[in-house]
Amino acid sequence: MKESLGARTIVYPAPVFVVGTYDREGKPNVMTAAWGGICCSKPPCVSVSLRKATYSYGNITERKAFTINIPSEAHARVADYFGIASGKEEAKLAAVGLNPVKSDLVDAPYIQEFLLVLECTLIHTIEIGLHTQFIGEIKDVKADASVLDESGIPDITKIKPILYAPEIRAYHGVGEFIGKAFSIGKSLTES
Amino acid sequence: MKESLGARTIVYPAPVFVVGTYDREGKPNVMTAAWGGICCSKPPCVSVSLRKATYSYGNITERKAFTINIPSEAHARVADYFGIASGKEEAKLAAVGLNPVKSDLVDAPYIQEFLLVLECTLIHTIEIGLHTQFIGEIKDVKADASVLDESGIPDITKIKPILYAPEIRAYHGVGEFIGKAFSIGKSLTES
Repeated sequence: MKESLGARTIVYPAPVFVVGTYDREGKPNVMTAAWGGICCSKPPCVSVSLRKATYSYGNITERKAFTINIPSEAHARVADYFGIASGKEEAKLAAVGLNPVKSDLVDAPYIQEFLLVLECTLIHTIEIGLHTQFIGEIKDVKADASVLDESGIPDITKIKPILYAPEIRAYHGVGEFIGKAFSIGKSLTES
Repeated sequence: MKESLGARTIVYPAPVFVVGTYDREGKPNVMTAAWGGICCSKPPCVSVSLRKATYSYGNITERKAFTINIPSEAHARVADYFGIASGKEEAKLAAVGLNPVKSDLVDAPYIQEFLLVLECTLIHTIEIGLHTQFIGEIKDVKADASVLDESGIPDITKIKPILYAPEIRAYHGVGEFIGKAFSIGKSLTES
């Protein structure tokens, strides 16, 4: 028997994206957002939704670019801080001793210490309501050599990303391997 | 030192959404998609991106509604099957013995056996490229009473949702609790 919880923003899992931008003066900013995800395969695109009140909103509107930096478990505390503090008041990366790297491909900085980053140019802006959705075309994915498997793909068990459970406001790690996609359900197609 | 992997669709974690729809004749269909996520808090909205070639694409365009059904670990195999088989050829829910429930709120069915479902009406359609992004306003979230915590919020550790690692095509469970959001980073704001 199902209970009605009302119109709420609950999906599991939500990601933890740290969005990197430059402001008008070229000062790097980062903020954490959980409303986003991949939204197209060709061209490869990722979306992230921000409130107009955020400093990053103005930066993306101005610079037409952003990065998505994926925090590891070791970065959970700073990622949470990046979601609490405002870039209007604080130089957040400097405050926690992390380093911005200027992207060669897009007009935005990524975080040197994070293990997986996406460099994106803004291609769509969708006004939804409290949040505006920015769709970025992924120009490159960069990963630390230490987290790549033998075929050159980032290994999720080496990156140890975190996920977010909305409403209950909890961060969790990635759990055990369950199975291969496009594979474990194959036998059911023959039933 | 970071290595460039090229323009690819890699973020960790991606969700595993089973999208529920009706076709023109009222036949229920489900398909699995990983390109999506919450995209606005007010109104509460979720996005999911589908290729035009899918049966669900036509259903959403026609009916202006869909559900998002969150699979648990126990449903990993059927969720994978729902992403492999086409609703054009197969009645997928019936094939695996799961039951569609007609939503009272939107013109789409949800899966009775899944522990967390979102009922959505289509409010935006964004043509991006290979994928079209559908933005649905969440009219209600329904959860099994057995997975609610004492404050009535779904407990992620009881739902045991699965997550998807793109490119490496792996499903994983949810791992250990790391910390409370808007909390573990708070002490850094005082530094």
